[in-house]
Amino acid sequence: MKTGDLPRTIEWIGGIDGYVSLIDQTQLPETLIRIECRDPQSIWHAIQRLSVRGAPAIGIAAAMGAVLGIRDFAGTDIKEFLSKLDETCDYLASSRPTAVNLSWALERMKCVAKAKGNSNVSDIKNTLLEEAKRIRDEDAAMCREIGRVGESLIEDGMGVLTHCNAGGLATAEYGTALAPMYVAHEKGRSFRVFADETRPLLQGSRLTAWELQQAGIDVTVICDNMAASLMREGKIDLVITGADRIAANGDVANKIGTYGVAVLAKAHEIPFYVAAPRSTIDLATQDGSAIPIEERDPEEVRRGFGRLTAPADIPCFCPAFDVTPAKFVRGLITDAGLVEPVTASGIAEIMKNA
Amino acid sequence: MKTGDLPRTIEWIGGIDGYVSLIDQTQLPETLIRIECRDPQSIWHAIQRLSVRGAPAIGIAAAMGAVLGIRDFAGTDIKEFLSKLDETCDYLASSRPTAVNLSWALERMKCVAKAKGNSNVSDIKNTLLEEAKRIRDEDAAMCREIGRVGESLIEDGMGVLTHCNAGGLATAEYGTALAPMYVAHEKGRSFRVFADETRPLLQGSRLTAWELQQAGIDVTVICDNMAASLMREGKIDLVITGADRIAANGDVANKIGTYGVAVLAKAHEIPFYVAAPRSTIDLATQDGSAIPIEERDPEEVRRGFGRLTAPADIPCFCPAFDVTPAKFVRGLITDAGLVEPVTASGIAEIMKNA
Repeated sequence: MKTGDLPRTIEWIGGIDGYVSLIDQTQLPETLIRIECRDPQSIWHAIQRLSVRGAPAIGIAAAMGAVLGIRDFAGTDIKEFLSKLDETCDYLASSRPTAVNLSWALERMKCVAKAKGNSNVSDIKNTLLEEAKRIRDEDAAMCREIGRVGESLIEDGMGVLTHCNAGGLATAEYGTALAPMYVAHEKGRSFRVFADETRPLLQGSRLTAWELQQAGIDVTVICDNMAASLMREGKIDLVITGADRIAANGDVANKIGTYGVAVLAKAHEIPFYVAAPRSTIDLATQDGSAIPIEERDPEEVRRGFGRLTAPADIPCFCPAFDVTPAKFVRGLITDAGLVEPVTASGIAEIMKNA
Repeated sequence: MKTGDLPRTIEWIGGIDGYVSLIDQTQLPETLIRIECRDPQSIWHAIQRLSVRGAPAIGIAAAMGAVLGIRDFAGTDIKEFLSKLDETCDYLASSRPTAVNLSWALERMKCVAKAKGNSNVSDIKNTLLEEAKRIRDEDAAMCREIGRVGESLIEDGMGVLTHCNAGGLATAEYGTALAPMYVAHEKGRSFRVFADETRPLLQGSRLTAWELQQAGIDVTVICDNMAASLMREGKIDLVITGADRIAANGDVANKIGTYGVAVLAKAHEIPFYVAAPRSTIDLATQDGSAIPIEERDPEEVRRGFGRLTAPADIPCFCPAFDVTPAKFVRGLITDAGLVEPVTASGIAEIMKNA
């Protein structure tokens, strides 16, 4: 299967009375099934239970969810309409706290609606649907650009480690961390990807392994605790992960375990890169200490696989993310070029035109 | 429950016509059931499928398995008897390659039998049974001693991280890595243990969490990839793990993931200790590069929990152990005292009286 043939993780089907169709990522790799969402509540729950996940995909889902929330608005009062939109957006923003793309996409929807404030309700509805689709299309274009920017880092014969899933399932198309791999593969380069399985929810073994295998890329699954050994054996030449939020100083919030991989990479002198579109960079967040870290249900650790894997009442620590200080990141692979070294001024520079 | 009340992980029931009773560790924490082994084959399979695991417990099981292999020997020819014993020991030694206690215990059984070579078969059988029980009792005494040697490292209010299970389930009684915790707890000290769940087979969340909870020690389960975050947050003050084999220079083979924890501990300036009886130290192995590392079935990664957690045919890397170079180990907590710093001469010194 070619990269372009990957099923779309999320899309809007039909016109303003249509629906959102998304891959239920909790069911992969066992079954590839799609969920139809026709109201904001089903989008909220799909985000919250991780049926749709990955910072960019969450942003797209939320934008489309905002459309679902207002498309049945029956009145003609613009103020009431905008208030309904605000309410829907606040609700959707509460589904997960860490990824900045979620609030970024919702803010963008609100701005577009306000800018059309002298139009009529029906027009604004259609404008919002167009905007949600544009967010999706722009994300796809940004991912391709990230792939183009980062592909030269992957040389023939390399071993590349990634953590979690920052691939096509997490975004509109090529993904972020996986985009350079897809492009390098399309250019005929031969390399081997190691996918950290990424406990507790196994996005690496379930999703990254699945989509790279579909694209014909050589991929091997490892448990998270095996990465250090592989590094010591010289099997890893490069690490690329995604990001859920990047602070103004370059600190990166990403899936729990990313920080450990970054420290291990540094100890083994292996370059550690983070791939993300500019929408993941949050200049309003000074550094990583200001990023809220979501705590998930301990049952994800205790009963992650439908079977009790720890004493039923044992306390578990279950943060969804961690923060990797900028000093561990060799470079940021963005849709506006490579930021290397990672500095506040380098980040400010690429954000000028964002 | 007090430490002394923990169910015995392995014991011989009855006389020479008795049997080996062991906890099936693959069923914990869901059910506490015991397996009765009446021939060496059932011991071999119990070791191989990890129903009995942990380097010291494997040694004890193998020694008892050797008795099961010769106790029905009907002849009176000593040479034939010893040959039957050798054959049984070779067979049992093939169950797992990394833990040195396995071959150590079997060699000890063979030596004892040879030393009684001018006796009769019936006497040697009884001597071998006594020796197997002695290996168990000595292990229990060594574990208590390890606890006594290491307990002062654990201060009130500390956070202590451990990886895998080197506790009472893995040994005859207090365990190795957990022994200092049990003794510190008995002395009334208050501290918090973080148990790495230890993929793929979850010995940390299934076994360590279970036995520490039984003993009333404050324990929290974390996924392997969360340790780095906790270290950065200052929640870990000390790391103690067990060992499957320690080379003459102090390199340590232990459960996969141990090396990563050691590197992370060093990066966060957290002392990393290894607890083991002298039977785990193998002076014949110069350094870690000479230790054979067992590769396990990739299905342990792909279907670890009775559910497909990766594409069915995806390649997986599945080493059971890794090697931590001596330079990452602050000290060895042994039954003959603390070796700190870890040097070949320090190790040679404590082995003089072994």
